[in-house]
Amino acid sequence: MIKVSVMYSNKPEGWFDHEYYRSKHLPLIKSRMGAALKYYTIDKGLADKDGKSPGAYVAMCHLLCDSVDEYRSSFGPHAREIDGDIRNFTDVTPTVQISEVVVENSAKGGTEAPHRNSMDRGSSPQQSDQVIR
Amino acid sequence: MIKVSVMYSNKPEGWFDHEYYRSKHLPLIKSRMGAALKYYTIDKGLADKDGKSPGAYVAMCHLLCDSVDEYRSSFGPHAREIDGDIRNFTDVTPTVQISEVVVENSAKGGTEAPHRNSMDRGSSPQQSDQVIR
Repeated sequence: MIKVSVMYSNKPEGWFDHEYYRSKHLPLIKSRMGAALKYYTIDKGLADKDGKSPGAYVAMCHLLCDSVDEYRSSFGPHAREIDGDIRNFTDVTPTVQISEVVVENSAKGGTEAPHRNSMDRGSSPQQSDQVIR
Repeated sequence: MIKVSVMYSNKPEGWFDHEYYRSKHLPLIKSRMGAALKYYTIDKGLADKDGKSPGAYVAMCHLLCDSVDEYRSSFGPHAREIDGDIRNFTDVTPTVQISEVVVENSAKGGTEAPHRNSMDRGSSPQQSDQVIR
């Protein structure tokens, strides 16, 4: 399983309409991606480590799909429409991160994902001390 | 419900031991936080929006708790021990973000969190066009 994290940085004088994001934008993504989107989560920034509001990111969403290919084939054809909707709730350009879900939910047995997928060639779960390039 | 996101930036020549992170560090956090930690997730960075590996963050974890107070009272007494373990799997100092969970899992009915908590004073779900400060 993979997770696409869309992260909106906290910028001075930036604006973000959390209500539109929750009630319009994410439902738009869901309707366009269809069954390829297993589920999504929405976070609203509260504070950084020292309690300063709202932290590095004012908002994030995470889109869960079975694979990077499923994400690209379902999101790609609607990317222009979805990205065009961003101006309706913020003036911040988001950072997008695609991750392998190593543990989906630690409280659920058997949800740990295998340590490989289509974008993780040649590595193994035993690999350690990996150099980040 | 709140989410504490611990995000490890991708740095040139940085190193990150994903196996230690999954099998030792997160279980350490879980054992110290006890029941206050509802569950956690682990992400391993694959790519940015354009497919460049591994993206902005080489790894992230998200810790789910009922409230900021529950997190602080359970993590705080063990912060020195837990933070001291970081050097065993990376030389990257993480960014920590505390967020309100607006939608925990869109595929599950009734998991949407109320739009308020102990750190969200004076705002309401209807508030929009919020200025980020």
